Amino acid sequence: MEIVALAGGVGASKFLLGLSRVTDPRELTIIVNTGDDIVLHGLAISPDLDIVTYTLAGVVNSETGWGFTGETFHALEQLARFGSPSWFHLGDRDLATHIHRTAMMRSGASLSKAAESIRQALGVQAKILPMSDQPVPTMIQTPEGRLNFQEYLVQRRAEPEVLGISFEGVEQARPARGVLESLEHAAAIVICPSNPLISIGPILAVPGIREKLRKRRNNVLAICPIVGGKSLKGPSDRMLAQLGFDVSAGSVARMYQDICATFVIDPVDAGETQAIEQLGMKAIIRKTVMNALKDKEQLARDVLELFASKATGAA
Amino acid sequence: MEIVALAGGVGASKFLLGLSRVTDPRELTIIVNTGDDIVLHGLAISPDLDIVTYTLAGVVNSETGWGFTGETFHALEQLARFGSPSWFHLGDRDLATHIHRTAMMRSGASLSKAAESIRQALGVQAKILPMSDQPVPTMIQTPEGRLNFQEYLVQRRAEPEVLGISFEGVEQARPARGVLESLEHAAAIVICPSNPLISIGPILAVPGIREKLRKRRNNVLAICPIVGGKSLKGPSDRMLAQLGFDVSAGSVARMYQDICATFVIDPVDAGETQAIEQLGMKAIIRKTVMNALKDKEQLARDVLELFASKATGAA
Repeated sequence: MEIVALAGGVGASKFLLGLSRVTDPRELTIIVNTGDDIVLHGLAISPDLDIVTYTLAGVVNSETGWGFTGETFHALEQLARFGSPSWFHLGDRDLATHIHRTAMMRSGASLSKAAESIRQALGVQAKILPMSDQPVPTMIQTPEGRLNFQEYLVQRRAEPEVLGISFEGVEQARPARGVLESLEHAAAIVICPSNPLISIGPILAVPGIREKLRKRRNNVLAICPIVGGKSLKGPSDRMLAQLGFDVSAGSVARMYQDICATFVIDPVDAGETQAIEQLGMKAIIRKTVMNALKDKEQLARDVLELFASKATGAA
Repeated sequence: MEIVALAGGVGASKFLLGLSRVTDPRELTIIVNTGDDIVLHGLAISPDLDIVTYTLAGVVNSETGWGFTGETFHALEQLARFGSPSWFHLGDRDLATHIHRTAMMRSGASLSKAAESIRQALGVQAKILPMSDQPVPTMIQTPEGRLNFQEYLVQRRAEPEVLGISFEGVEQARPARGVLESLEHAAAIVICPSNPLISIGPILAVPGIREKLRKRRNNVLAICPIVGGKSLKGPSDRMLAQLGFDVSAGSVARMYQDICATFVIDPVDAGETQAIEQLGMKAIIRKTVMNALKDKEQLARDVLELFASKATGAA
């Protein structure tokens, strides 16, 4: 069964690791948020692409969810001596990825080509596509002014109040090669448990993607990243509240109402079922909190079974 | 006393380390060969500038004479997985230098500005100038075709026969800012014990430098890098022989005849004295083989004394 997943970083990767272990990863295509991308030290850095790739390659630091396991930071310490910003933690092995990607792109290759080269070198069998080859930097409007997303999240530890979110240049961006085709042909489309505002939001904002998902709505299933009114990972809960949203599963469901027929929530949110079904979506209750590998595999199996049993709206 | 030194890499740095310890390093300006520069992994690498800087900063790997002491190579191992060439040994800390230099130059800074930033960050007090801000890559003509100098030296371990040497684009190159001025005003100019063909040769080939040295000939002293018919460091001896030169102190003296009044040779080459003096140069016998730090300091003291005592032709 051809499966396409829409993914941000750490939260998505947990589920994707499970999925790639309980199904043939060669039938899996992952469309990854690149709104988080940033150029630092002259190097093109794609945090979500790398988190997904490193996780599926089995080299990720499992404590942090990003970077390489057993990593050293000698280059970064030295860069700090040159007065370069060191708030973005680039490890020595990780730097090789950015050096390689930057060299490829300076030679005229697309971000897609670089991502493909990296996942192949690391032995990842699933296809990994950036949402777009054009830069679409996510900017966070705060009382201190507009911040690049990484500045907001990493440098400022998500402390400034979020007044607004924009995806710079998204009007001119095009889905990367393979994105619309894979969405067209997938038997199952899964929106991973990622931040709806700044991980899935940028993907949906690339012209053509949301429209395509609307047409495939019956084949789209989302896993809710908000459990019991809190985000499983990262500042989603705080951002939702600051932007005036309810911090609830129902609130996320509403954002996906037009593109998604099946919405998976955790048992602690069973009380949201009715609100979700009133949106014309099927609410499915499964354990979505993934700590151990077996949790990740179980949720993946549950999702596959929902598609196989036609419990989703998929024909 | 203002001193200017012309330098290649490891051989020169031994002497310069001694010199910077027995005189005020703020009165020392070092003009460094950049013919060895190469772009690898999209990064601007200046091996001789870095060897000189790291040596004077006290961070150099004293066994190899290049790179950082206690260095790791995690990024390079990872780059090799991406199919990038790994024959040029770039350590993790060393990579920070190249990343920083490349970022500065991509932002429009000159190689000089980058070199200045790097030596200041590493706390080096001597001024370090590239010979030119324009790229002048040294190419080695071999039976296998033309090789970039680093390909010849590092990748091919100086094995191919040298048929010719060229400095690409040197006609259009200009001395970097400060080079001619420092040569004009220096009380003492020292040609370090570096390969005359591929370390000092490129510096002398930059339009204006050789002419300036001719005018300052009485203030120029060279330390011979050939001792007892062998090079102290690197493939100078082999290259000289392959290009039809005698492998001798006298042979090197001849190359500097027009720009240098004083030529320092090792006691083992005392027999060359007459040949050197016939070139109109003063031959001075001092211990030039530098192993321990005290050897480096002693040779530096000897050189300073020669200038102070007017044993050189300097007025």
